[in-house]
Amino acid sequence: MGIVAVDLGATWIRAGRVSPDGQVHVDFRVATPQQGPQAVIEVIAGAVHKLLQGGRPSRLGVAVPGPLSVREGVVFEPPNLHGWGEVPLRAMLEDRLGCPVVLENDANAAALGEWWRGAGRGSRHMVYITVSTGVGGGLVLDGALYRGATDVAGEIGHVFVDPTGPVCSCGRVGHLEGVAAGPAIVRWVEERLRNGEPSFLRGQQPLTAERVAGAAQQGDRLALEAFQRAGRYLGWAVGGLLNLLNPQVVVVGGGVARAGAVLFDPMLEAAKATAFPAAWQAARVAQAALDDRAGLVGLAHLVLQANAAR
Amino acid sequence: MGIVAVDLGATWIRAGRVSPDGQVHVDFRVATPQQGPQAVIEVIAGAVHKLLQGGRPSRLGVAVPGPLSVREGVVFEPPNLHGWGEVPLRAMLEDRLGCPVVLENDANAAALGEWWRGAGRGSRHMVYITVSTGVGGGLVLDGALYRGATDVAGEIGHVFVDPTGPVCSCGRVGHLEGVAAGPAIVRWVEERLRNGEPSFLRGQQPLTAERVAGAAQQGDRLALEAFQRAGRYLGWAVGGLLNLLNPQVVVVGGGVARAGAVLFDPMLEAAKATAFPAAWQAARVAQAALDDRAGLVGLAHLVLQANAAR
Repeated sequence: MGIVAVDLGATWIRAGRVSPDGQVHVDFRVATPQQGPQAVIEVIAGAVHKLLQGGRPSRLGVAVPGPLSVREGVVFEPPNLHGWGEVPLRAMLEDRLGCPVVLENDANAAALGEWWRGAGRGSRHMVYITVSTGVGGGLVLDGALYRGATDVAGEIGHVFVDPTGPVCSCGRVGHLEGVAAGPAIVRWVEERLRNGEPSFLRGQQPLTAERVAGAAQQGDRLALEAFQRAGRYLGWAVGGLLNLLNPQVVVVGGGVARAGAVLFDPMLEAAKATAFPAAWQAARVAQAALDDRAGLVGLAHLVLQANAAR
Repeated sequence: MGIVAVDLGATWIRAGRVSPDGQVHVDFRVATPQQGPQAVIEVIAGAVHKLLQGGRPSRLGVAVPGPLSVREGVVFEPPNLHGWGEVPLRAMLEDRLGCPVVLENDANAAALGEWWRGAGRGSRHMVYITVSTGVGGGLVLDGALYRGATDVAGEIGHVFVDPTGPVCSCGRVGHLEGVAAGPAIVRWVEERLRNGEPSFLRGQQPLTAERVAGAAQQGDRLALEAFQRAGRYLGWAVGGLLNLLNPQVVVVGGGVARAGAVLFDPMLEAAKATAFPAAWQAARVAQAALDDRAGLVGLAHLVLQANAAR
């Protein structure tokens, strides 16, 4: 029957059945309702019903975007979920579904998935970075998810990289996310276009990071420069993290990372220039392997752990 | 009789006897010989002989400055020890002293000391930063020293903070140490003095970070600005580390940190401005409590652990 996991995102709810060895056997996605937690819970219940053909899971794994207390099972005003305040999501889901629920932050769940069955497989210390609308991350240290004192750890998008950087989506200055996430890439291109720089991208509306990536891959100079800039910032941050955490693997995923070499080449160059040789040689930097399913796989691992700890 | 520990520094070798509850009972220091490892080993043997009045320790803890493999007991060309290449220091010390030796990086040993019996006491996750000639550090995560894949972890001085920063002592650009260590503070003041800025410090030779601190405490504007700048960089890095590691305590020690409020005030302000509220509220930032003896105390903890694991 497998393990049932649900990855709740701002736009999509992805649900799936994962085998105990971490293979995703069935998965599908449903649009995330924008009417608050109760509506989301109903969609989750429907997805679980569909996956188990009416059966009840022995335990459900659920990933949520944004801040939560894993211990208390409470989600704190996720900025990307409309109409959510402080929500005791674990208790609400357990009431509705009649089974125990394991909650985790979405980036942490994806990190764990990549570590267990993806690009970080076999490592003891892994840094996971996902670059898309934001820059998220998760840390696996000494073979276990590292959550910190209050489950906030792993916010790699909000390490400091530049005193002159723009205001980050979180409202603070100097963070990696403010210069390397998709919207930061688009904003930078738009500004250069306004200054009259030539580019294939002129007039493309709406401008997206994906379109900038496409233009970069076709050799558009402005688009290439935009990815070089973002890649360099990512690399500087990664190089610093290699010196700080000395992991065996840095796994980089997310929509923006799909751009491939136009992002990875400047990132690797900057990381190598910033890291100590001993830290650089100990680590490999790898593209994420599980794509959108990393969260489901990581949740399955957490469900197995919870089952074993019972 | 207590535990015998030796903290080998570039300038001084500090040796002491520590009780099993972490109190330093006797300690003294000897100038570090500059003629390579064999001369250093003789001084260490002499110090141990003196501490135990000719007796032999059951196990000796030794801290070394710079890169090493804890597992292999090998020190790799410490930049601050003259005439050292790759040195199998543990085996050499064990041969000379006839007892097992525990080796550790000096900043890691100090971190462990502050965590066990100093300003980080009682915490589960602690970040230790020492600001002096360099910026060093150590991480205690999940109640244990975190060393990373190859014992390089904890190099907080070499996280990335500014693309336009000067070249760091390690030869790389953008690192915290390059803008916040003592020599960086002095260099910045010297440059401003050359540009004709007024200051009490004009004509003071040699200019040291301690003198700059003294002038700042007396209200010298240039000196205050120098400490504000260093403090701000430290705070930005600390704020980012709060988001990344979500510790309960950040302990800040080292000679430059003795400046007190002129460094701590701008540091705390910048850290608060950079950290998420949830990460900021979970942590306190504290001045180190054990001063130069933190390393000896941390080594005693490692010796006790090694004895227990036997």
